[in-house]
Amino acid sequence: MIAEQSVHRFLDELASSAPTPGGGSAAAIMGAMGAALVSMVCNLTIGRKDYEGVEAEMQRTLSEAEALRQRLTAMITDDVQAFDALMAAYKLPRLTEEERVFRGRAIQEALKQATDVPLACAQACAEVIELARRVAPIGNRGVISDAGVASLAAYAGLRSAALNVYINAPSIKDTDFVRSRSERLDQMLAHCAGGSEQAYETVLGRLG
Amino acid sequence: MIAEQSVHRFLDELASSAPTPGGGSAAAIMGAMGAALVSMVCNLTIGRKDYEGVEAEMQRTLSEAEALRQRLTAMITDDVQAFDALMAAYKLPRLTEEERVFRGRAIQEALKQATDVPLACAQACAEVIELARRVAPIGNRGVISDAGVASLAAYAGLRSAALNVYINAPSIKDTDFVRSRSERLDQMLAHCAGGSEQAYETVLGRLG
Repeated sequence: MIAEQSVHRFLDELASSAPTPGGGSAAAIMGAMGAALVSMVCNLTIGRKDYEGVEAEMQRTLSEAEALRQRLTAMITDDVQAFDALMAAYKLPRLTEEERVFRGRAIQEALKQATDVPLACAQACAEVIELARRVAPIGNRGVISDAGVASLAAYAGLRSAALNVYINAPSIKDTDFVRSRSERLDQMLAHCAGGSEQAYETVLGRLG
Repeated sequence: MIAEQSVHRFLDELASSAPTPGGGSAAAIMGAMGAALVSMVCNLTIGRKDYEGVEAEMQRTLSEAEALRQRLTAMITDDVQAFDALMAAYKLPRLTEEERVFRGRAIQEALKQATDVPLACAQACAEVIELARRVAPIGNRGVISDAGVASLAAYAGLRSAALNVYINAPSIKDTDFVRSRSERLDQMLAHCAGGSEQAYETVLGRLG
């Protein structure tokens, strides 16, 4: 499990010539850091007298953020597994016609998996942005910059995951699959560009 | 050292009600992941026959990226220390006039330090974006999405660090200090918004 490695060792492996971990794992970590920072803002708002009015909303947001953090932390490793499965499929034998057909199908299956993993990461990052947007105007002002960082990290995670969808799409022959995934991704990207900026601007407005 | 903790534990502490680690450490990690991904692209381009023409540039970029990664990894902890020093200054006694003067000076010094640490992080992230922009058009096409993720991570790190500069600025009385830092930051943000998008678009263009 990559998440059990030290931050230092993870960065060493990210930088190395090994193809994994790569940008997909980095995207999941950005999303997980975003979720963690939403949780931090909630934890430092809950129980404070000045913020009694938003206590219930903060409690609800905290449990949503923690569930997202768990999902995104698991995705750090999912991305590596999906990539390894794809590499394994490419290495299948292709001497006979039967082997070639089998290999072709295995590659197509692995490509779909290697597309759906970053798509799930993108979806989770989009949900983190929604939570950052929710806490930005109402969370404890003393730590509100962390809601801004949450939104920036999750949006970078979303766009990074998108690159990992785009890299596989041209090799996938199932055009319905590609179309449906691209549409979902485009919707998320369009929706979250504005949402992330809104959270950032709200935070900036409360810092002055 | 935070970087010696597991990724999992770091995320737990980021989410907790402890005020550190917070967004400043997350910003440094985003920058360090960006630098690591630039290194990865270099490592997977160097020594490949198809990329002999850019070998020297990749070697140079690799050593620059590794130096930046080292600086940014150290900043994960620098941010915590700057915050702790500021909290310690606020807790100094203020019963006598002498104590109040001493405390006031200590707070101002700690605020400047807590501003210069994220400013150095912003600067390092800006340099990572330049490297991502350099490798995006010439790095190994098979891993070029990682150059895009590098640029996105470093830009989110830069904007996150900026929020940590803005949060302290209103409390700093030395207006020359605030003006000079704000100007440097504004220049970096303006320059890097375009640079980061350019790296991203270059990568997108090479994925299709």
